[in-house]
Amino acid sequence: MTLESFFQQVRPSIETALDGALPSEDRSPPVLHQAMRYSVFAGGKRLRPALCLAGFRAFSPEWRTALPVAAAIEMIHTYSLIHDDLPAMDDDDFRRGRPSCHKRFGEATAILAGDALLTLAFETVARAGGLQPERLLRAVRMLAEAAGTIDGMIGGQVLDVQATASGIDGSALEAIHRAKTGALLAASVSIGAYLGGADAARLADVAGFGRSIGLAFQIVDDMLDETVPAEALGKTPGKDREHGKATYAAVHGMEASRRMVARLTADAMEQVRPLGSDGVLLGEFARHLERRAR
Amino acid sequence: MTLESFFQQVRPSIETALDGALPSEDRSPPVLHQAMRYSVFAGGKRLRPALCLAGFRAFSPEWRTALPVAAAIEMIHTYSLIHDDLPAMDDDDFRRGRPSCHKRFGEATAILAGDALLTLAFETVARAGGLQPERLLRAVRMLAEAAGTIDGMIGGQVLDVQATASGIDGSALEAIHRAKTGALLAASVSIGAYLGGADAARLADVAGFGRSIGLAFQIVDDMLDETVPAEALGKTPGKDREHGKATYAAVHGMEASRRMVARLTADAMEQVRPLGSDGVLLGEFARHLERRAR
Repeated sequence: MTLESFFQQVRPSIETALDGALPSEDRSPPVLHQAMRYSVFAGGKRLRPALCLAGFRAFSPEWRTALPVAAAIEMIHTYSLIHDDLPAMDDDDFRRGRPSCHKRFGEATAILAGDALLTLAFETVARAGGLQPERLLRAVRMLAEAAGTIDGMIGGQVLDVQATASGIDGSALEAIHRAKTGALLAASVSIGAYLGGADAARLADVAGFGRSIGLAFQIVDDMLDETVPAEALGKTPGKDREHGKATYAAVHGMEASRRMVARLTADAMEQVRPLGSDGVLLGEFARHLERRAR
Repeated sequence: MTLESFFQQVRPSIETALDGALPSEDRSPPVLHQAMRYSVFAGGKRLRPALCLAGFRAFSPEWRTALPVAAAIEMIHTYSLIHDDLPAMDDDDFRRGRPSCHKRFGEATAILAGDALLTLAFETVARAGGLQPERLLRAVRMLAEAAGTIDGMIGGQVLDVQATASGIDGSALEAIHRAKTGALLAASVSIGAYLGGADAARLADVAGFGRSIGLAFQIVDDMLDETVPAEALGKTPGKDREHGKATYAAVHGMEASRRMVARLTADAMEQVRPLGSDGVLLGEFARHLERRAR
């Protein structure tokens, strides 16, 4: 199965899972549920849930079982975008080519919509059927750690806000990128593999794969901010540079950044080689993410 | 055992559980962990964790088993206070007699510290040992529902922000209060009872008790805002009235509010009567909360 046909297969199911898990817009309070749905259904590529399902599928064909967990991961990703865009944080007026959540619904509602998506994510995992409770409880923990403060998404965001391109070295920058973006991407594929039944050795392979593509993904993001026009990016380009942000492009330059992405992609593909044909789809994923940088 | 001696017994253990679950202040990023600890260790009365442990204790003597879950509930309560105080929300500069989290650490850090406490709460439940995974998974769900958008804390907060004293009727006001404050208080005691091993009938009794004291608690809060001087309240008094907020004091008057609290307290004590001597401590809790209104 090619990555393209995999995406075509799973994306409609991911949309359905999200739609089923999110309260409808007429439930009270309507404005809150509208804001949650506005941001969740803003045209995201569903990369993280797809990675979760691909990780699951490498060990079990019953990938539909993991759909609630995949949806929960997308909710956590979406909450982080809503809060990152707030005036007190990155102050972004646009997201995916539309007004960001707080521009559309006001700051208070945006803060609460983010809180609500984070809360609903854990509720959705806890409600998932068809998987053993101890495995789902472990998924709650893996997800919370990836989204948390120690080498996780929130910790990375704090370090990122504090960092500037002029005052940072390469290893500190790498730690920020691994935490801010890498941790949730890596957890997506690891949680999928774990719920699919991976043993400890294979889970370690997949976790290594996840860390490699997680870092590569954020480096590519830094590069896209430099090179892609606003309409294609869906948000304000060049903003990182303008604000003296610590990005790979600013610290290492574009050419070195491109080489790092190539090396991380090769690492990732090597890490899933032991899975044989079951790991081919994950390898395709790594190559797909690299191609974004071209 | 009197309520006083129960509090004396459990409070140090609750503090220890919170201290053990929260990353230390020197872990990276320090400012984030400082902000989390600043708000968690601000002198809160630990009412919700104590209720959780009292609910557990009504069905099992091993209340220490529930300490991680009790700590998680306090984290969720604290996150809600941090986000409620933000300029875009209630815009409160003081909390428990000290600068609120965003006044002390800045808005971005306060938003992220709240997010982090919410995330850590679920991680803490998922890490709890000594209880069956399916019970802990159910606790995750009960906690997320109580903190969520449908009749839960976030939903109540949105409705509360929208409501004004002049444009609301009694039943809408009651629904807001039940969601905003009541849901988490009720969940605290219900989750404790559930983890302690309550059967369905007794769990229903405890849930009814929790709903009664949850509503009574918020009515008392409305009344205290009218009557208590700033230094004793630890936050700006009379603010609700000044902002035309929909409070019981404003909509029903002080005397009717007091009568409602008395009725809800009597209801609550009636609801735990079937538990016999195991329910005495919970009954004391209800009376204790009523006394705050005097």
